[in-house]
Amino acid sequence: MITSMANGHIKQLRLLMEKSRARNREGVFLAEGIKMFTEAPASGIREIYYAESFDLKAMPEVREKLMECEKKGALVEMVSDEVFKKTADTKTPQGILFVMEQMQYAMSEMVDRAVRRYREGGREPLFLLLEDIQDPGNLGTMLRTGEGAGVDGVIMSRGTVDIYNPKTIRSTMGSLYRVPFAYVEKLSEAVELLQKNDIPVYAAHLKGQRFFDELSYEGGSAFLIGNEGNGLKKETADLADTYLKIPMEGKLESLNAAVAAALLLYQASGNSRRKQLK
Amino acid sequence: MITSMANGHIKQLRLLMEKSRARNREGVFLAEGIKMFTEAPASGIREIYYAESFDLKAMPEVREKLMECEKKGALVEMVSDEVFKKTADTKTPQGILFVMEQMQYAMSEMVDRAVRRYREGGREPLFLLLEDIQDPGNLGTMLRTGEGAGVDGVIMSRGTVDIYNPKTIRSTMGSLYRVPFAYVEKLSEAVELLQKNDIPVYAAHLKGQRFFDELSYEGGSAFLIGNEGNGLKKETADLADTYLKIPMEGKLESLNAAVAAALLLYQASGNSRRKQLK
Repeated sequence: MITSMANGHIKQLRLLMEKSRARNREGVFLAEGIKMFTEAPASGIREIYYAESFDLKAMPEVREKLMECEKKGALVEMVSDEVFKKTADTKTPQGILFVMEQMQYAMSEMVDRAVRRYREGGREPLFLLLEDIQDPGNLGTMLRTGEGAGVDGVIMSRGTVDIYNPKTIRSTMGSLYRVPFAYVEKLSEAVELLQKNDIPVYAAHLKGQRFFDELSYEGGSAFLIGNEGNGLKKETADLADTYLKIPMEGKLESLNAAVAAALLLYQASGNSRRKQLK
Repeated sequence: MITSMANGHIKQLRLLMEKSRARNREGVFLAEGIKMFTEAPASGIREIYYAESFDLKAMPEVREKLMECEKKGALVEMVSDEVFKKTADTKTPQGILFVMEQMQYAMSEMVDRAVRRYREGGREPLFLLLEDIQDPGNLGTMLRTGEGAGVDGVIMSRGTVDIYNPKTIRSTMGSLYRVPFAYVEKLSEAVELLQKNDIPVYAAHLKGQRFFDELSYEGGSAFLIGNEGNGLKKETADLADTYLKIPMEGKLESLNAAVAAALLLYQASGNSRRKQLK
C-alpha cells in the first residue's frame, strides 16, 4: 500500500493531473471515479489506484474490470485513504483513479467514415469545430452533447483547453471514450477537408440572415463555435459557407458556447432524423 | 481607503460571498465585474467597492454609474489592491464589486403577465421549473439561456442552489437582472398555478413517447428540469401533463441539465415565433 505523498507514483499522478505537458509527453491521462472506470476501454488502462477503504467486494463491476486490466498488464496499487484524498481532483473522491493511454483519431478517417455512412443511406455527417474554447466544463459538455446528437467528430484549435483536463473529463460523463476528436494547428485545415467532402460549414454570426432553426442542413453540417469571451476570429468566421443566427430575446449579447453548440447540433441531427423517417 | 482585511465592511463582504444565509438575512447579494455593474439597476445598489488601481477615468460608463449610485445614497469605498484581490471571488478581479438588494418577484405576477401577453396576441407563455439544481454554473447558464429564449420566469425548488451564489451570478452574464425568478417550498404549487392558467407542463422522461422536437407546445409551456445526478423525483415527474424524450445517440444516459433546458426552451420559443410569423 502506498502511504506517502513522496511516493514516485503519487508524484507522477499529481503531475499528470496538473500539467497537460506531462500528459502529452507520456501520451496518457488521468481519470477518476467509478463510472469513468467501468466505461473505460480496458486495453488502454495502464495503472489503477484505489483507496484502502474502497469496498471492492461491494462493487463487482469494478472488481471484474480491475482484474481484467491487471491480467492485461496494468499496475494495480492500493493507496492509503489520506494519500488518496490528497491525490484525487474531486472533493469527495469515489476511491478509484487510473492512468489511461490517450486516444488517437485521424481527422481524415472521421470524415471518411461519416461521408461513407451518409452515402450508404445513413445519417448526414455532423461535425463540431471549436476555436479556443477555454472553459474545461464547456468543452466536456460539448463532447457529451455531441455524443447525444450523434456527432461524427469534434475538431479543436490548438488554443482550445486540453481535453484531458480533469474537469473536462468529468463533464464528458464518459463521452470522452466514445466521441472521436482531434486537435489541429489551424481550423482552416479542417474546414477545407470538410468542404472538399461537400459538408457545409456554418457559423453563428451577427451577419447571419436566417435563424438556425429555419435551415435544412441538407448534406450534413459542421458548426464553428468560438471562444467564450471573444467569439470566432474574423478569419475563421470568413471560412464558413453560411452564417446563421440564434434568436435572442432580452438584452443578451450571446449564449453560453456549450448551449449554442447544443442548439445547432440537435437542430441538424433532428432534421436528419426526420428526413430519414420520411 | 480600506487597507485591512479586518475592516468591518470587508468582513461583511466575505460573509455575503460565502454564506447564502447571510445574504438572505440582509436581503442583499454581492456581485462583481464591470459588466455586472454597468448593467445593474442603480436603484438597488447599496455599496460599491473599487480597487485603488482601478482606472475610473478610463471607464466613463463605470464612473457615471458610480456617481449616479452615490447620489442615490450608495456607499462608495476605495480598497487597496491587496485587500481587493483577497476579497474578490474571481482569480483576475476587474476591480469593482458591489452589494445589491435582492430582487423580489411574485410567481403569480409572472404567470399573469405571461398569460395576458399571450391573450393579447403575443408570444405563448414559457416557464422553466427547476428541481434541486446543484451546480451554480448550470443555474446561471439556465437563466442566461432563459433570457435568450424569452422565458417568463424561472421557478426553483427550495433545494436548488442559491441564485445569488457568486458563480451563478457570473454565469448569468447579467440575465440575473432581467429574468424573473422565484423559489417555492414545493414545485407542485408552481405546477398547479401554471395548469390552472392552462399552461401545459412538460417533463423529459424515459417514459416519453414523443421527441421534444415533434410537439407543438400549443398554448405555451413549462419545462420541469431535474437535479443533475438524479433527475426529477417521481412525485414531481408525475405532475407533468406530458412526458417527452430528447433523442440520444451513443451510450449516453442523459444530457447536461442546462443543455436539456436550452433545447426545450428554444424548441418551444421557436415554435411560438414561427406561429406568430404565419
